[in-house]
Amino acid sequence: MNVHPFDAAVKLTPLDLPGSYAGASSPAYWNMVGPFGGTSAATAMQSVMQHPERLGEPIALTVNYASALGPGPFTVQATPVRTNRSTQHWTVSLSQLDTSGAQGVVMTATAVTAVRRQTWSVNDTPMPTVAPPDGSARFTFPGGVEWIKRYEIRPLAGLIPNIWDGSGTGSLSRLWVRDDPPRSLDFASLAALSDVFFPRVWLRRATHVPVGTVSMTVHFHADSRQLTQSGEGFLFGQAQAQTFCNGFFDQTAQLWSESGTLLVTTNQIVYYKE
Amino acid sequence: MNVHPFDAAVKLTPLDLPGSYAGASSPAYWNMVGPFGGTSAATAMQSVMQHPERLGEPIALTVNYASALGPGPFTVQATPVRTNRSTQHWTVSLSQLDTSGAQGVVMTATAVTAVRRQTWSVNDTPMPTVAPPDGSARFTFPGGVEWIKRYEIRPLAGLIPNIWDGSGTGSLSRLWVRDDPPRSLDFASLAALSDVFFPRVWLRRATHVPVGTVSMTVHFHADSRQLTQSGEGFLFGQAQAQTFCNGFFDQTAQLWSESGTLLVTTNQIVYYKE
Repeated sequence: MNVHPFDAAVKLTPLDLPGSYAGASSPAYWNMVGPFGGTSAATAMQSVMQHPERLGEPIALTVNYASALGPGPFTVQATPVRTNRSTQHWTVSLSQLDTSGAQGVVMTATAVTAVRRQTWSVNDTPMPTVAPPDGSARFTFPGGVEWIKRYEIRPLAGLIPNIWDGSGTGSLSRLWVRDDPPRSLDFASLAALSDVFFPRVWLRRATHVPVGTVSMTVHFHADSRQLTQSGEGFLFGQAQAQTFCNGFFDQTAQLWSESGTLLVTTNQIVYYKE
Repeated sequence: MNVHPFDAAVKLTPLDLPGSYAGASSPAYWNMVGPFGGTSAATAMQSVMQHPERLGEPIALTVNYASALGPGPFTVQATPVRTNRSTQHWTVSLSQLDTSGAQGVVMTATAVTAVRRQTWSVNDTPMPTVAPPDGSARFTFPGGVEWIKRYEIRPLAGLIPNIWDGSGTGSLSRLWVRDDPPRSLDFASLAALSDVFFPRVWLRRATHVPVGTVSMTVHFHADSRQLTQSGEGFLFGQAQAQTFCNGFFDQTAQLWSESGTLLVTTNQIVYYKE
């Protein structure tokens, strides 16, 4: 059986120290100057998921993109710094040998896992009423970066501009998305999918400026049972910026299962030039 | 000249190790079983602000409330783990002696600071049109917790329920707020103000259940010059939950200066019981 490219991308091999792992940048998810940031976020999540001392399931993940991850091997250190009765707090660090031969931090992260209990619940953010996935064409990007080919993206609104003429008016995008080939949803892939939206500033300005995500926070609202129910189905996602100010804009986004369960709310802050 | 209670609350004294500081829980900002979480977030921010190697101004802060902070002294360690040309990545940890005599981690945090440059900017989240601060009465909470007295809060919508009868229908609150006595806005106080909203689940359910913030992320959209302009004026804030699911709800909030500059967008995930 072939290994799914996502599983290959986030594969971590335990090293001698507890919570220490070896990984490698994935050419299959290559972006312009490094791997897709979503796979780095997923790697941080994965280091927590496969830690033998983990308690419960992810509630929150924040990843900070400290430096460009290069090709080749890296190490991950996941540490449970506080374990309570039903919650656990994690710090995570990704390091890679830099050109001077020193280990440099390329990502820091924190995560919270918890044992969920069934309580009163209500979702105040229902999925918008939209056409089903087969009602819109797949996004293709000839000559584009590799990682986009690893996702079947079917945009509904707020497509990436065809003409970069500065005519943008809004920043809302809506789309269907799933792994290609399809893969059962888990917390690592959900972390990656949280970063699947193209930069809001490109849409808002219809101008192609250099960008880079600085920090992303993911809040998980579903448990593994609900992710299993989502299976290999599409997710519906929407993303929007609240503000663009002197070099940094934010993105607020939601991901629902195909049947309308709100799985994730996520926010990021992104550098842009000019 | 008297020291403002907020400055006393976030006062950090450098220790021997670089980035290591001594602080103490503030009785003036006491909540039910520990100090107001906003002051803890502000302490994490402050440890970065007064670090001699800091580059630029805050862009992002995530704080994770690992354990209840008790009365008395604590230590803070702020470490610049990666310094780039115009951005800098920080990890922060708050520790306190626990009852067994061991140092326990009570908070982890990450922060990003950056040198901002003037660029194309647009705010897509204008402040709602609302009555001015003097148009609404100050919120008072007789016999309430101490920290609320440190803020002049003038609610406009989504007030804390008077009757806990399970009749809640929405989670949106709007309010004017400033330090009491008034104090010039800075990044530490802005971090604290990001946590000023009462728990959304109380409003949504009109039911008083135990709660505790697990993780809060603050994205800063203004520079120190804009904070100075805001001065001792009121901020306008609004907060809303997107979903409540099996023990955890989220809160998404914004803070504007009195004149309508969007200063902060912030999200948190909060534990609730039942």
